[in-house]
Amino acid sequence: MKQLILKTLPKAKLSKDDFEVLEVDKPKIESGEVLIRNILLSIDAANRSWMQGRTYRDAVRAGDVMPTYAIAEVVESNDSQFNQGQIVSGESNWSEFTAVKGSAIIKRPNVGSLSNLLSIYGIAGLTAYHGLTKVGHIKPGETVLISAAAGSVGILAGQIAKAMGCLVVGLAGTDEKCKRLKDEFRFDDCINYKNVDLLKELKKACPDGVDVYFDNVGGQILEIVLFRMNMKGRIVCCGAVSQYDGTTPIGPRNLPGLLIVKRLKMEGFIVMDYAKEHGNAIKHLSEMNAAGDIKITEDITEGLENAPDALIGLLNGDNFGKRMVRVTVDP
Amino acid sequence: MKQLILKTLPKAKLSKDDFEVLEVDKPKIESGEVLIRNILLSIDAANRSWMQGRTYRDAVRAGDVMPTYAIAEVVESNDSQFNQGQIVSGESNWSEFTAVKGSAIIKRPNVGSLSNLLSIYGIAGLTAYHGLTKVGHIKPGETVLISAAAGSVGILAGQIAKAMGCLVVGLAGTDEKCKRLKDEFRFDDCINYKNVDLLKELKKACPDGVDVYFDNVGGQILEIVLFRMNMKGRIVCCGAVSQYDGTTPIGPRNLPGLLIVKRLKMEGFIVMDYAKEHGNAIKHLSEMNAAGDIKITEDITEGLENAPDALIGLLNGDNFGKRMVRVTVDP
Repeated sequence: MKQLILKTLPKAKLSKDDFEVLEVDKPKIESGEVLIRNILLSIDAANRSWMQGRTYRDAVRAGDVMPTYAIAEVVESNDSQFNQGQIVSGESNWSEFTAVKGSAIIKRPNVGSLSNLLSIYGIAGLTAYHGLTKVGHIKPGETVLISAAAGSVGILAGQIAKAMGCLVVGLAGTDEKCKRLKDEFRFDDCINYKNVDLLKELKKACPDGVDVYFDNVGGQILEIVLFRMNMKGRIVCCGAVSQYDGTTPIGPRNLPGLLIVKRLKMEGFIVMDYAKEHGNAIKHLSEMNAAGDIKITEDITEGLENAPDALIGLLNGDNFGKRMVRVTVDP
Repeated sequence: MKQLILKTLPKAKLSKDDFEVLEVDKPKIESGEVLIRNILLSIDAANRSWMQGRTYRDAVRAGDVMPTYAIAEVVESNDSQFNQGQIVSGESNWSEFTAVKGSAIIKRPNVGSLSNLLSIYGIAGLTAYHGLTKVGHIKPGETVLISAAAGSVGILAGQIAKAMGCLVVGLAGTDEKCKRLKDEFRFDDCINYKNVDLLKELKKACPDGVDVYFDNVGGQILEIVLFRMNMKGRIVCCGAVSQYDGTTPIGPRNLPGLLIVKRLKMEGFIVMDYAKEHGNAIKHLSEMNAAGDIKITEDITEGLENAPDALIGLLNGDNFGKRMVRVTVDP
């Protein structure tokens, strides 16, 4: 079977040469393990941050099979809880087949389209939902600004905030993305942050200031947004993708100064922190989807061997919506 | 009477030459105004930040009489709520006498020592108390780290946290300050952050990590402390004195990255935000003082003309405890 390893740890920008495709034997499973056939691999900016050291999970080292979150089908099981043919999700890796511990995967419903389990009903949708409600505490009538708005989380966060009665403004890296977010995804406005005076554009797009900033990027954009935050505003720290891919880290120079002057709250979170609330969140998300408030958009790259390109492209901002790699068709 | 103006706005470090002493007529009061004789002027690092632009109050401009919070005595009143001889506090300025609006001052009890109204029962004590309880939500057994620990707020914050059952570690700029904080003010440990490997010293002094960081300084120290924060830790953003006096602002490079990984919360506040709780806080502070848990220490400079030196010295870290300028003796 095919398998991809991270051959070298990137020192600057991640490149295709950092990966290597191997032909290896299908893994054998031990007691308590399950052999899964990977169907869809989640491609996330966080994958790059894992190469920088320990985060909320172990660091990825040179020579490791590249880890990923995946949707998969059980092929063989030494765990009585799992049977052949079941759909599962969990920590897997960039391989056609992976041997995992039964305790590390969970059963998933075989919904019409398995890719939805990685987008609206997966980490992206849950992150957007919990981030806005549990960390941002958004209220109807507030202005919510979202960076990486065309990304997997951003595009859902915008639609959820809109459905909850907020004024929603996005930040994205191309005019084309901005146009689509406004025309097709109900964003009230969207700023292409490249080559503009962002502070000036924010004044126009958020005339009453920003109450909640759902931040996926950190860095210089965060520094500028801080100037437009309203008193008692909240900054949902979801990601810092501007800091992941080989750039020298930049700390906003107005931190913590403006937090004091404006009595702001900044809070970091990981979707797993709210695991107990996932059930309610999925119910609410599916209601919003059924009501037409949330439109699903997915960005699927075909073929395991294209996973490096998919990740590198994501770090360059090429995706629109949740990016994933399809290893094989839905069963 | 004597009065001090900020003659020039400092571009780099604040200097005595930025101030000028004037001899002017005693102000006349209009309807609704009160003439007060300033007794004690509060000297705070925030005074310097007012010269940088609008903060939680209007900016101080070149030519302005230097504003300050003061304890004063009513000399003449055109406001029926105030009589001659009453002790008041509020926004005043660096003058022997100041004409203020009656609505801008409040009556204060003529306690044994008026300086206590600027230290434990004033902004310093209330800031320390509300910051720890309302923003930091400290719990017994937690480790609380305090920067500018020998400053007006820090020295009280340390004693309050200790009285509430926390392990208390301070950061201060001299060995002498650290020794006094440990020997006389019940700090469990104190690190002189100058010329040491701060991360290493923090590991020794806070073996279980830091649950609450009461931050008065911002900048590089904040960057290092972030590495020692525990999961779900809280950072009380009270001040950023390292960023006020003419230095190029530095944003911690691990913000917002580490907030996400460690699920930290950073929150800014101003003591006035909790004005409704001042009564309860003062009651609790006086009980802790009576029980011997809080020792009061004040750093009083004599003479209005020495106010510039008092402020410049404070920005250099010369003070131990609440710094103030005595304009005249308690009545």
